[in-house]
Amino acid sequence: MTETRKPLILVTNDDGYHAKGIQSLVDSLKGLGEIVVFSPDKSQSGMSSAITVSTALRCRLVKQEEDLKAYICTGTPVDCVKLALNEFLDRKPDLVVSGINHGSNAGISVLYSGTVGAAIEGCVFQVPSIAVSLCEFQPDSDFSKAGEIALKIAQRVLIEGLPSGICLNVNVPAGNVKGIKITSQTQGKWVNEYFKSKDGSGRDVFWMTGNFENWEEDNDNSDEWALANGYAAVVPVKIDMTAHDFIPELKKWQW
Amino acid sequence: MTETRKPLILVTNDDGYHAKGIQSLVDSLKGLGEIVVFSPDKSQSGMSSAITVSTALRCRLVKQEEDLKAYICTGTPVDCVKLALNEFLDRKPDLVVSGINHGSNAGISVLYSGTVGAAIEGCVFQVPSIAVSLCEFQPDSDFSKAGEIALKIAQRVLIEGLPSGICLNVNVPAGNVKGIKITSQTQGKWVNEYFKSKDGSGRDVFWMTGNFENWEEDNDNSDEWALANGYAAVVPVKIDMTAHDFIPELKKWQW
Repeated sequence: MTETRKPLILVTNDDGYHAKGIQSLVDSLKGLGEIVVFSPDKSQSGMSSAITVSTALRCRLVKQEEDLKAYICTGTPVDCVKLALNEFLDRKPDLVVSGINHGSNAGISVLYSGTVGAAIEGCVFQVPSIAVSLCEFQPDSDFSKAGEIALKIAQRVLIEGLPSGICLNVNVPAGNVKGIKITSQTQGKWVNEYFKSKDGSGRDVFWMTGNFENWEEDNDNSDEWALANGYAAVVPVKIDMTAHDFIPELKKWQW
Repeated sequence: MTETRKPLILVTNDDGYHAKGIQSLVDSLKGLGEIVVFSPDKSQSGMSSAITVSTALRCRLVKQEEDLKAYICTGTPVDCVKLALNEFLDRKPDLVVSGINHGSNAGISVLYSGTVGAAIEGCVFQVPSIAVSLCEFQPDSDFSKAGEIALKIAQRVLIEGLPSGICLNVNVPAGNVKGIKITSQTQGKWVNEYFKSKDGSGRDVFWMTGNFENWEEDNDNSDEWALANGYAAVVPVKIDMTAHDFIPELKKWQW
């Protein structure tokens, strides 16, 4: 007789274990399976797929309840996924869910986001993986609606699976959500990215700031369009970054 | 009468300004145009597309010669590109070249590499961009052959340009180089990624290590195959990570 085990769900984020978003995510996913949280011990926002290559990492179990364990780790979001999968989990998870990030990871932010980096890493391990972000910056944001959407998508992914090498980047707008739109990464970039200021000795310092310049505002198949129109945006993200279509052209160059 | 200005080339890396690889790259590209180096003041290996979001960045001019300026910066490789383009360069560069990295950035390492992250960022700014890595780890590696290949590719890219949203990831094998192969990112992942050890108080710590597991050893269109067979591997890399082919399938899911 084979024992049917509950799905194992690895939860992580980039805002750190003490962020409201990851606690809301755990609350939302409770009941779906056995949850192991493995998250950074402090904010790791903007860490992309960064890995810690030259310092030692530490991990600590901070919670153990029925169907819920939580570890914190000194590393990046990708370090967390790698450590959990290599060293701490006793079986391969059925799902990785990263978030709920406090702020948008739509458009080009997919490149910089530690939340998305963690989902991409789950995908590298061939585990169906989802990144979830709430497009709101108020300190007291309510993550419950985003949590409901995370649950809905997690349930579907557990049923349908995801193709090897593809994960989902989910962004949820503030306020009412009209529904879910499957979209593509909006083309555009951040502009006016630095605020130049002075330190206590009068030397120049640069603080990151800026705003997203949307290069395809009219494209209703883009994630920014979906968000601006009240939909949660789901972008399937590939870990193969090869521009396959350009290879024949590149081969024609005179080498 | 319009003045023809020399091409402006922004050079950066992730090993830091004092690394041998970036100095070799500058030596190789000299003569091709006006060079501005803008690189991290220390190693930023494995930083992917990480950005510094909550601390202030500092930059310092450390060299000024004819057709060569160099700045160091406290941030990541992507911070360097963003700061150079937003705040320091007086015109848009004609080319961004990142490297020469000390070690391979082939296969899945494209996700973790700060060298590639910087080239991707140049591409975000719609500047033709190239990442160059030497697949060798000896402390005294000779970067001159990789420098020759970097020059050759930089010259071609200055002539041909690159499509918007596509940059080049170039890896050069150790030893003799038979030629250049246009390839795709090898599918696979790192395995055995941690060495577990103890700190001075007897607590567990984890050091990154591991080896690349190649899932397509026989694919002669992959970058790992090219490198294993003595060729420099050039992979065109896309910044749009959307899995466009999977969108129709995902839309069919019951939402």
